[in-house]
Amino acid sequence: MAETAARFPDSEFRTRVEALQTRLRAADTDALLLTGAADIFYVTGFLTRFWESPARPWFVVVPARGAPIAVIPSIGLDLMSQTWLRDIRTWDAPTPGDDGVSLLAETLRSVIPESGRLGVPMGAETALRMPMADFQHVIAQLTPRRIVDATDVIQRVREIKSDAEVERIRAACRVADAAFAQIGDIAGCGIPLDQIFSDFQIALLAAGADWVSYVAGGAGRGGYRDVISPAPHRPLVRGDVLMLDTGAVKGGYFCDFDRNFAIREAGDEARRTYDALYAATETVLQDLRPGMTAADAHRMLTGSLEKSGVQPGGGRLGHGLGVTLTEWPSFIPADHTELREGMVLTVEPGAVIAPGRMMVHEENIVLRASGPELLNRRAAAELPVLG
Amino acid sequence: MAETAARFPDSEFRTRVEALQTRLRAADTDALLLTGAADIFYVTGFLTRFWESPARPWFVVVPARGAPIAVIPSIGLDLMSQTWLRDIRTWDAPTPGDDGVSLLAETLRSVIPESGRLGVPMGAETALRMPMADFQHVIAQLTPRRIVDATDVIQRVREIKSDAEVERIRAACRVADAAFAQIGDIAGCGIPLDQIFSDFQIALLAAGADWVSYVAGGAGRGGYRDVISPAPHRPLVRGDVLMLDTGAVKGGYFCDFDRNFAIREAGDEARRTYDALYAATETVLQDLRPGMTAADAHRMLTGSLEKSGVQPGGGRLGHGLGVTLTEWPSFIPADHTELREGMVLTVEPGAVIAPGRMMVHEENIVLRASGPELLNRRAAAELPVLG
Repeated sequence: MAETAARFPDSEFRTRVEALQTRLRAADTDALLLTGAADIFYVTGFLTRFWESPARPWFVVVPARGAPIAVIPSIGLDLMSQTWLRDIRTWDAPTPGDDGVSLLAETLRSVIPESGRLGVPMGAETALRMPMADFQHVIAQLTPRRIVDATDVIQRVREIKSDAEVERIRAACRVADAAFAQIGDIAGCGIPLDQIFSDFQIALLAAGADWVSYVAGGAGRGGYRDVISPAPHRPLVRGDVLMLDTGAVKGGYFCDFDRNFAIREAGDEARRTYDALYAATETVLQDLRPGMTAADAHRMLTGSLEKSGVQPGGGRLGHGLGVTLTEWPSFIPADHTELREGMVLTVEPGAVIAPGRMMVHEENIVLRASGPELLNRRAAAELPVLG
Repeated sequence: MAETAARFPDSEFRTRVEALQTRLRAADTDALLLTGAADIFYVTGFLTRFWESPARPWFVVVPARGAPIAVIPSIGLDLMSQTWLRDIRTWDAPTPGDDGVSLLAETLRSVIPESGRLGVPMGAETALRMPMADFQHVIAQLTPRRIVDATDVIQRVREIKSDAEVERIRAACRVADAAFAQIGDIAGCGIPLDQIFSDFQIALLAAGADWVSYVAGGAGRGGYRDVISPAPHRPLVRGDVLMLDTGAVKGGYFCDFDRNFAIREAGDEARRTYDALYAATETVLQDLRPGMTAADAHRMLTGSLEKSGVQPGGGRLGHGLGVTLTEWPSFIPADHTELREGMVLTVEPGAVIAPGRMMVHEENIVLRASGPELLNRRAAAELPVLG
């Protein structure tokens, strides 16, 4: 059952842009240049799978005061006109030699004084989605204006989700909950993993996903080797642990959680590891509070895992979530980002069972003043066994 | 039915790398830096949906002589070890402050002499998938080596498909052919467009797509407004023209073609437009030859459409296809890229019926010495009518 989420009210976008502008002005920056699908959707509501085509660059300029300006290929005019943006400037892309460069430069010059500064996200978890040579041409046409890093401007705003955003993510989680509830029809002994990946994607769509941007997982005896591989054509066998992880999309927002299943029988080690992962997650669900840091969350998880006699996974044990499958911060010892009310996060403890054999467990939460609120249905307290 | 394509033989990748290295040496460039999913898959065979997470950068370095080197987050080590690459260097990402920067710089310094040059794709249809600040730090650590644009190196090689690649694209086309063959069960009068998008994605998965990276389309009375929007919750009505466009993925390769259908009845104008689009495509299928340019293909299509009394669409009327949904060149008057044997291309004439009402028609071909060879089943010669 497809059901596309209603458009956010204009007030939602105005609030977002005001928050960006407050930070722009505080950083003495005159405008913010956005080039990526997530940032542009966040500011405008412009939602399309056309980003899959690398052919054309798209730009949104958020001045420190006044309305955002879209500078986009004319193929997107109709769709952008349905958003709250009123200032939409287009060119016929692709145009070899000047693919939006002079139009973007002219727009930026009009909102940034000569003594002013353009903010561009350049830090961790950002990428400039336009040809680098074109960016250099734009900069050259902005002289003597200065270019500064604006990663903080966009990330400190995007990381706090409005109630409307939380509802979108909850809707995406509900889709995955419904698909996981069908797992008995999808996975089992003798069924090849690639078939399971395919049928799980079908179940996500049937449960209402607009599209399925991410499905990964793994399967192996008592644990799996890695969690990012495409599925091989290998039938599940008794004693396997199967993990499925999904980023289904609903109204432009992602869920990102996984589930583990034992095939026919759960070995003692797999059960003990699952229990440890479940307990570590439970600790965070009980005790995480605004004001703690991402590093604190990591410490809570590793502490609990070690108490259970399990070796914590080496990677990050949780992260932000929302307009992309993963967002900052990272639950790692070196990330001291403050966890604030309204952040949507994944809690993702992992355990190394043996070299080349691991298990991970993931839940999605929104952080409230009183602690975490689950956005998906909590995993089963004991490792489920499939037939 | 999921069936993951077998891995390419190592010789396939060796041939690709030798072609890149020949061009690197001809351009007096000592190494090529790749950061994007498509380029890295092309050189290594590393295929994962994990690119959906913007958190971590990934690098592959192709020296002008010798084997490629992967410089990647340790989470990808297991999967990269299954490719033909033997030199894989990892760091535990994310590492705030030095997220692969010094490891990449060290690697580049080891393969580029101080007087040498690093090639980075910076031109049209490229983007650097790493934080810009980190790229600047890498460059600083390479001094006095020079950075040059290597767009031509990667694009002139990737645009010619091997037989093995053509077979992958053909397999993706077959998936979409099979899904379109089910259209009578998916679309019809009274069915909302979002439901059709959802069921069409399910049909693509059921027909064997590994995943569905792109579905778009439109519907409207006698034509549609645009071709990139998500589907609204609007039931189809008699007289609508429905268009569905898909980029289904099989073994890492895309198809990209669309189909049009009239709902209950086809109006005279829609039928005439369809006939004109079909005839324009037919002209290209008959007459396109290696040695012509992208601009020539555009001229053939617009010439045929105008002869049929139809106004050609303003955008590009065809493009490359393969490891991404769209690749260069573009069938536009300004693109004088030579069309060469082995290029896989879409032929995509569009027609403007009235302001805000259009139709497009798309087929996928491989260009042979003797002319185009269709990779998908040719569209029906007359606009099909659904119940």
